[in-house]
Amino acid sequence: MQVAEITTPAVLIDRGRVENNTHEMARRAHRLGVRLRPHVKTHKCVEIARMQVADHFGGITVSTVAEAEHFAVAGFRDITLGVPISLARIPQMLDISGRLDAFHLLVDSRRAIDALALAARQGNQFVSVFLKVDCGYGRAGVVPGTEEAEALAIALHEDANIDFRGVLTHGGHSYDCLNREEIRVIAEQERVAVVDFAALLRAKGIPVPEVSVGSTPTMCVAENLPGVTEIRPGNYAVFDRFQTAIGSCSPEDVAISVLATVIGAYSDRLILDCGALALSKDPGPTHVDPHCGFGQLMTEDMLPIEGLSLTGLSQEHGKVVGAAAKNFQVGDRLRVIPNHSCLTLACFDEVRVVDGSMVVDSWSPCRGW
Amino acid sequence: MQVAEITTPAVLIDRGRVENNTHEMARRAHRLGVRLRPHVKTHKCVEIARMQVADHFGGITVSTVAEAEHFAVAGFRDITLGVPISLARIPQMLDISGRLDAFHLLVDSRRAIDALALAARQGNQFVSVFLKVDCGYGRAGVVPGTEEAEALAIALHEDANIDFRGVLTHGGHSYDCLNREEIRVIAEQERVAVVDFAALLRAKGIPVPEVSVGSTPTMCVAENLPGVTEIRPGNYAVFDRFQTAIGSCSPEDVAISVLATVIGAYSDRLILDCGALALSKDPGPTHVDPHCGFGQLMTEDMLPIEGLSLTGLSQEHGKVVGAAAKNFQVGDRLRVIPNHSCLTLACFDEVRVVDGSMVVDSWSPCRGW
Repeated sequence: MQVAEITTPAVLIDRGRVENNTHEMARRAHRLGVRLRPHVKTHKCVEIARMQVADHFGGITVSTVAEAEHFAVAGFRDITLGVPISLARIPQMLDISGRLDAFHLLVDSRRAIDALALAARQGNQFVSVFLKVDCGYGRAGVVPGTEEAEALAIALHEDANIDFRGVLTHGGHSYDCLNREEIRVIAEQERVAVVDFAALLRAKGIPVPEVSVGSTPTMCVAENLPGVTEIRPGNYAVFDRFQTAIGSCSPEDVAISVLATVIGAYSDRLILDCGALALSKDPGPTHVDPHCGFGQLMTEDMLPIEGLSLTGLSQEHGKVVGAAAKNFQVGDRLRVIPNHSCLTLACFDEVRVVDGSMVVDSWSPCRGW
Repeated sequence: MQVAEITTPAVLIDRGRVENNTHEMARRAHRLGVRLRPHVKTHKCVEIARMQVADHFGGITVSTVAEAEHFAVAGFRDITLGVPISLARIPQMLDISGRLDAFHLLVDSRRAIDALALAARQGNQFVSVFLKVDCGYGRAGVVPGTEEAEALAIALHEDANIDFRGVLTHGGHSYDCLNREEIRVIAEQERVAVVDFAALLRAKGIPVPEVSVGSTPTMCVAENLPGVTEIRPGNYAVFDRFQTAIGSCSPEDVAISVLATVIGAYSDRLILDCGALALSKDPGPTHVDPHCGFGQLMTEDMLPIEGLSLTGLSQEHGKVVGAAAKNFQVGDRLRVIPNHSCLTLACFDEVRVVDGSMVVDSWSPCRGW
């Protein structure tokens, strides 16, 4: 089948680019002396996850219990659920844990530790747990070095049913950066936050086997990671317009696009059949370019189109404005590089895998929670 | 099953509120002397569509070919595809058309008319077509009263395989309004655009059986619609925070909420397990309140929570800030009234239907294109 035969809207993944991206990150991890435990939440596709773990130990990171189930069924044996646990889901998590070689959970509160320890004790199970650390992003995690953080680490260390696996952080504020130099500062902040905290805990006699960091921006620029044992980037497998804008990758590394058709052509604008349900309403790298719009317009052959901007999205309409609108007519097809591949891929039940103008495969992302 | 037993994140629909909303719009349509052809794109659920058409002729509006298929299979016999046609999908549309009592398509270009007429002629079929009119929204549609618009209406009227059904518009710029008074102005603009254009065409001897208008805001405030034959609101079945903010409805009319769990509790913030994949990244009614955030926080029992704001969404994390954060702990549950129900419902494969604290049903929205 040819790309030209695909009905729109459709999400396309360039297989060669994914192969390059995953190979490159695997090589980086080896060079940095760390294990790669890639996040799979961006794509939720077993086929991409297999490329991501090639040449490493096979561990992955997921963002939902449903993903953990999905990838466990597909044969992945070592999984970290990279979001602090939801207490009501503990029975499901323990069930999955019993079926895997390793299922690592995240906590950052006394309540979560107590609930998890109690459930594990009652089920006569051992559960592997990371203490989630906030390295300055300001989302989840304990503040490293504080009394509270230390107390939680001790509680994890001392519990008979918990295997305290280590400390873990995510430098999500790297997405606020404007360029690689700024990202490098965040990468070092991310590293230091957990490496120093691990040292502090070890000095108190608490073993800390793992020191885990990672976001795609920080892991694309980090030049050395002393003290870190594993990294967890994910978006890098396909990248997107945001990653290009802040310097994580080059435009030619981006493996994702949405194929669309012109359904309205007017003197000053076009309407495409890809709206908010095909692209997501992610505003993109507005801190780099306030007028970035909802995606970058490309020809069907993936050449950049100058003079057109995707300025508006309603449910099933994409509104494109600019002088070049007059060069297109109803029925023409083009592609959109999405702002945020994680949210765009979640819009589709089927991912079309392409190699040049050929469709070579079709993948089904996991859905739900 | 109780709401308290649902795992999160989950989308809940209050059945009683949907019944009230759908009944009220059906009554309004009768009072206005127009047929109600509700849009079903907000929810894509057969069960809600059936409530919407009760006490009217049974026609609906859909936004994708997949929805047309889905609702055709469910027994709906009169469907309008409310988006200008994509030329490559014409064979599928003609196939659906052959299976329904009526399947109305939208065009606003010569190319679409020519392609549709050719395909219909080759298949020896008749196809029902509306001319899409722009009433000031600036998205799709011809400008009424222009030579081009008139020429397209004549082409539709004269084609032997096309049944020119009438003129159709959508006052989507009603969403830019701040209150009901402003919406009323748009409602009149929406009405006049198509009623005057229909009169102009009729004066030239072109029959215009249908004059179709509608958005939820305009149809919630319009007090009379002379010349209009049918209305196509959709969001009103469940409403959302946006509709409340601009005055389309009262807060107690909103039938949708997302149930979430606190997975992180800190001195200054909470983290919920509903992120961008459970709510969408719709920024909401920022023109009414620039600090509206990504949804309105409610207790699990649906009482408003003061002093908390849902300021950030990443893929699976919702970040809540405010003084009231200290009143919550890990494991607590609350609900979020989403900014935009159409995009939020598309995040879920299953809709939990509730009546007070009881789960009374489960519905499956249509997906894809």
